[in-house]
Amino acid sequence: MKIRAATEADRDGIWDIFHEVIVAGETYPINADISRTDALAYWFQPGAHVYVAEQHPAEDNQGHWIVGSYTLHPNQSGGGAHVANAAFIVAKHARGQGIGRALGEHCFSHARRFGFRAMQFNFVISTNKSAVKLWQDLGMKIVGTLPAAFHHPEKGYVDVYVMYCSLLED
Amino acid sequence: MKIRAATEADRDGIWDIFHEVIVAGETYPINADISRTDALAYWFQPGAHVYVAEQHPAEDNQGHWIVGSYTLHPNQSGGGAHVANAAFIVAKHARGQGIGRALGEHCFSHARRFGFRAMQFNFVISTNKSAVKLWQDLGMKIVGTLPAAFHHPEKGYVDVYVMYCSLLED
Repeated sequence: MKIRAATEADRDGIWDIFHEVIVAGETYPINADISRTDALAYWFQPGAHVYVAEQHPAEDNQGHWIVGSYTLHPNQSGGGAHVANAAFIVAKHARGQGIGRALGEHCFSHARRFGFRAMQFNFVISTNKSAVKLWQDLGMKIVGTLPAAFHHPEKGYVDVYVMYCSLLED
Repeated sequence: MKIRAATEADRDGIWDIFHEVIVAGETYPINADISRTDALAYWFQPGAHVYVAEQHPAEDNQGHWIVGSYTLHPNQSGGGAHVANAAFIVAKHARGQGIGRALGEHCFSHARRFGFRAMQFNFVISTNKSAVKLWQDLGMKIVGTLPAAFHHPEKGYVDVYVMYCSLLED
């Protein structure tokens, strides 16, 4: 598995995974009927650094597939532009292999390199336990809880966390 | 002072106040060089309910002036669309007269009427003490603190609050 900057040719692969994640409806507060155009405009928003995780199959060695991606960008502009935000997607068939963690580590490292002073996740749904644990492992803290801020397709209204960490050296 | 729904004819008045607020740079994480088009696209974003506060001068009675405005809209889409977000602006020359409070009360009342279940403010800058107090008076609680998330033009890096309250009847 290799992580590299996204190119124009990756847009179809990113949209496929993004669409799969959004239709599941469990981890992002985004309408399932979002268009490809709007989805890619969000992922490749102004100022965004987009990376993809690419898996090279060992056996046939004939190609490669995108199995995940992240978008890293300022969470706000003006006086808030020193705080990064990022969003992550991993293809369903490729989960449980550490791809999210690898993307997360890559993202935090690059956020520091780009000069961001902190990372903020605005909407980590409390039922998405693997994500909460992963971000905590990477140093993020729950700094706020939004009561019943997400309507989960199966669990109803559930809490949402705001997570944050400094990216400055101690 | 009267609060009413915004019309096309209010766009210049809203832009004037918005621009004045953003250039001051103390209360919104938005670049001071934001264009009129982008500013109005934010204020009148899809799904937004925009209201203005209009002051009728007592003496000459020849016209009216917009002295403030708010935009009320879903904070997220999909499973997060039941939580409202709002933003407020008041013209500098008209501050200290309770216009912000009147707009806030109007906004919360209308958010309930539109069926929103909660209100969230994502970025209340801690040095903006009159805003923090006003929102607390209206029932908002600080549910999260983002350390040093805003670079204040005079005070440097300052904390930012995430504020939230349920709009459901007890």
